[in-house]
Amino acid sequence: MRELDRAEALRLLATVSLGRIVFTQHALPAVRPVNHLVDGEDVVIRIHEGGALASLAAPADGPGVVVAYEADAMDPDTHLGWSVVVTGYARPVADAEDVDRYADLLRPWVERATTRTLRIRPDLVTGFRLEAAAPPPAPVIRG
Amino acid sequence: MRELDRAEALRLLATVSLGRIVFTQHALPAVRPVNHLVDGEDVVIRIHEGGALASLAAPADGPGVVVAYEADAMDPDTHLGWSVVVTGYARPVADAEDVDRYADLLRPWVERATTRTLRIRPDLVTGFRLEAAAPPPAPVIRG
Repeated sequence: MRELDRAEALRLLATVSLGRIVFTQHALPAVRPVNHLVDGEDVVIRIHEGGALASLAAPADGPGVVVAYEADAMDPDTHLGWSVVVTGYARPVADAEDVDRYADLLRPWVERATTRTLRIRPDLVTGFRLEAAAPPPAPVIRG
Repeated sequence: MRELDRAEALRLLATVSLGRIVFTQHALPAVRPVNHLVDGEDVVIRIHEGGALASLAAPADGPGVVVAYEADAMDPDTHLGWSVVVTGYARPVADAEDVDRYADLLRPWVERATTRTLRIRPDLVTGFRLEAAAPPPAPVIRG
């Protein structure tokens, strides 16, 4: 297992379009798959206001909400690949031009209105890549 | 988008071996990829004591720690597929026979010692499946 530096981790994150936003909801850990783009070092996602992610829709001029964002590309059989985790403050994108630009680039993955664009500024970036041979995946017990 | 019921969600979860454990670490949202198996309704993972997941290694006779566990199988191009999120208490597996059985079945994904086996009892199980056509994935802005 090789640890990734910040630049390589963000570069890999930009090569995929799906990830998982990790946040706190009613004091419990929560996670939802979303699609993203990487703009410079920022991770940009769009959410739909009424859903579970609504707790992330803090005021644009506020301090934001700390979230983690995970994406990976791992072979389901060999388990080889990489995983990147970004932790930082998520804030709504306030600039109307940016909002329009992101709306063009970041099509809603699920067919429903996404009404808020969030920018995550990476504070902590960690990641690893597994390149060596790994044991086969575990079988499943059907209980 | 179709919501999954509990039984179908757990059945799908058992068809893959990789997922992401979501927890709170130093009051911040944290996420790590791990491999899992499904035993009855329980999600079983193994962790290595010294890592980021150490905060999950609560006493086996304690109330446990609330975590979320996410797994999905989504096409990176079409974004079609499913995602399941399980939320519940994670507790170390105490029974020595169970520990041995899981150790045989759940090979460490990364080549390092995993010293603790955790069982997540699903309290809340949610999931969805995307079957309809979706828009193409978003392009990447290279900043």
